[in-house]
Amino acid sequence: MSTVAVVKKFINAPDDVVPEALSGMALAHPGLIRVDAENQNVIRADAPVKGKVALISGGGSGHEPMHGGFVGRGMLDAACCGAVFTSPVPDQMAAAGSAVDGGAGIVHIVKNYTGDVLNFKMAAEMAEDEGVNVESVVMDDDVAVKDSLYTAGRRGVGGTVLAEKICGAAAAQGKSLAEVTELCQRVNGQVRSMGMALTPCITPGAGTPSFELGDDEMEIGIGIHGEPGRERLPLEPAAKIVERLTTPIVEDLPFSEGDKVLAFVNGMGGTPLIELYIVYNELNKLLQGRGITIDRNLIGNYITSLEMAGCSITLLKLDDELTALWDAPVDTIALRWS
Amino acid sequence: MSTVAVVKKFINAPDDVVPEALSGMALAHPGLIRVDAENQNVIRADAPVKGKVALISGGGSGHEPMHGGFVGRGMLDAACCGAVFTSPVPDQMAAAGSAVDGGAGIVHIVKNYTGDVLNFKMAAEMAEDEGVNVESVVMDDDVAVKDSLYTAGRRGVGGTVLAEKICGAAAAQGKSLAEVTELCQRVNGQVRSMGMALTPCITPGAGTPSFELGDDEMEIGIGIHGEPGRERLPLEPAAKIVERLTTPIVEDLPFSEGDKVLAFVNGMGGTPLIELYIVYNELNKLLQGRGITIDRNLIGNYITSLEMAGCSITLLKLDDELTALWDAPVDTIALRWS
Repeated sequence: MSTVAVVKKFINAPDDVVPEALSGMALAHPGLIRVDAENQNVIRADAPVKGKVALISGGGSGHEPMHGGFVGRGMLDAACCGAVFTSPVPDQMAAAGSAVDGGAGIVHIVKNYTGDVLNFKMAAEMAEDEGVNVESVVMDDDVAVKDSLYTAGRRGVGGTVLAEKICGAAAAQGKSLAEVTELCQRVNGQVRSMGMALTPCITPGAGTPSFELGDDEMEIGIGIHGEPGRERLPLEPAAKIVERLTTPIVEDLPFSEGDKVLAFVNGMGGTPLIELYIVYNELNKLLQGRGITIDRNLIGNYITSLEMAGCSITLLKLDDELTALWDAPVDTIALRWS
Repeated sequence: MSTVAVVKKFINAPDDVVPEALSGMALAHPGLIRVDAENQNVIRADAPVKGKVALISGGGSGHEPMHGGFVGRGMLDAACCGAVFTSPVPDQMAAAGSAVDGGAGIVHIVKNYTGDVLNFKMAAEMAEDEGVNVESVVMDDDVAVKDSLYTAGRRGVGGTVLAEKICGAAAAQGKSLAEVTELCQRVNGQVRSMGMALTPCITPGAGTPSFELGDDEMEIGIGIHGEPGRERLPLEPAAKIVERLTTPIVEDLPFSEGDKVLAFVNGMGGTPLIELYIVYNELNKLLQGRGITIDRNLIGNYITSLEMAGCSITLLKLDDELTALWDAPVDTIALRWS
């Protein structure tokens, strides 16, 4: 038997996965983005935009289209891509800052994972030393666990997609650094998420599943790197799974009768779209029963864990301002409307 | 041991998969589509559009977002959804025709699978009996095999997505029934595809894999229901796999030096986006080496086989007319630009 596991993936070599994927992205979408290959950053094609607050996010790769697929008009100015499931580094983030700084300051939107938080903090200090104003907002919308394998406090998950869209729209409309920062904090305050997995995933480097799940088991409250959740249970019907995810979300904020929400049903990568619509159908029933109205929705694979089968549910409490910012034009690889 | 296999899917009951998913789609996208639940048809929200040629497609479910995700302004008027991997029926197709007929005739865009072809033919005859003009175009772009498990002749695969977009644009611009039909035939004449699988998929009803593949094997030339392809081989690097798919495509038409193409890299459902961009990167290199220019591209999961890991490559030879029709506005669940 070979000592090298056969990984059933489209790769040439594990170390080349991220650089080659970024090369493909750059070739495919020259009107939207450019790639700084040396720093592994995806940059908005026309950056820097003078006078506009710049938005930067990033994290480990393997969660595509997050974050590189959200770079473009009306959303992010740059995404810093780490190796698969590995934080990007401060120098890389600082380079992204230099590439997109339009003179109005920079907001770092950071998912709450210890590596990301520390590295974005160092990058912010480097930028401040150069006289650039940087604000950071740490997203921590995952209600599943208090602390996890890679995180002190709650993890940042699906809410980050919504924050990037909404804050990107505000920045495009000329809001100030303080206003965009406050808005991002407000989104984080009003958004809650929880995920689950039916299967593990395999990173190109490891070649073996990130964890083991029995043939009839599922993991409720899983993190986006396969880190443990709340509980491992026998598989259940879709309606019951949706209830297990939604009840903790609704009761955490809490979301109340009369609330309008944006409901985001996210696939972890390996779940067919047809199943995500079944999840949405159940979610709609459940929220209707609580007097909560879904006013906007997003359904698809947006923050993934490679080919993991599973889903997450994110609810954002809407008001007129957030709704208008959600509806505002966006032109990125993964989200596009006018 | 239970006689019922545990299927790791978000379902309530196998028979409810398609109706519940369609219910979710209808709830999520009321501005774009409506669902005729009785007939399992997805209908453009504002259909019928008076004076416009209507486009209808359909097929088994499990290939989402195809075809329901392509219903809307600038693309399909209706999609007829069969059970998973099962043809829709003539009555259902006839009902779709009645719902979308705007008086200018109907084009059926049919993937070449025996059941689909027979049933769409019967539906066309039913419509003709009612005095509605129906033209049918059978797509057969798959170069992998001459005849397959479910098909006499070549199968219809990824080229169908491109035909639906391009013909949808032509219909939106007021082209006649004869013109849209001729255009669809022309697209079919200029488009070639081939797919491959790294893993099988599991239908909700069967609960077991559609076929077996060894831990280090892949199937080249697979069909979108897991039907056998050209050959089963040991796994290879991405560059080699892309060559195995692309060379037969290029040599079949043939595509020649100086040609401009639309390159469509499609995920079979369970392959992460990061890998599809690696495939695109390799495809770009390979075509560049042959003097063929990628002028437009589409990368993502558009014609899937549930959660199968794998991809297909489709190349369409472009001219100015096809390029302009591809670029024309479209507003559907899965494709959206202006």
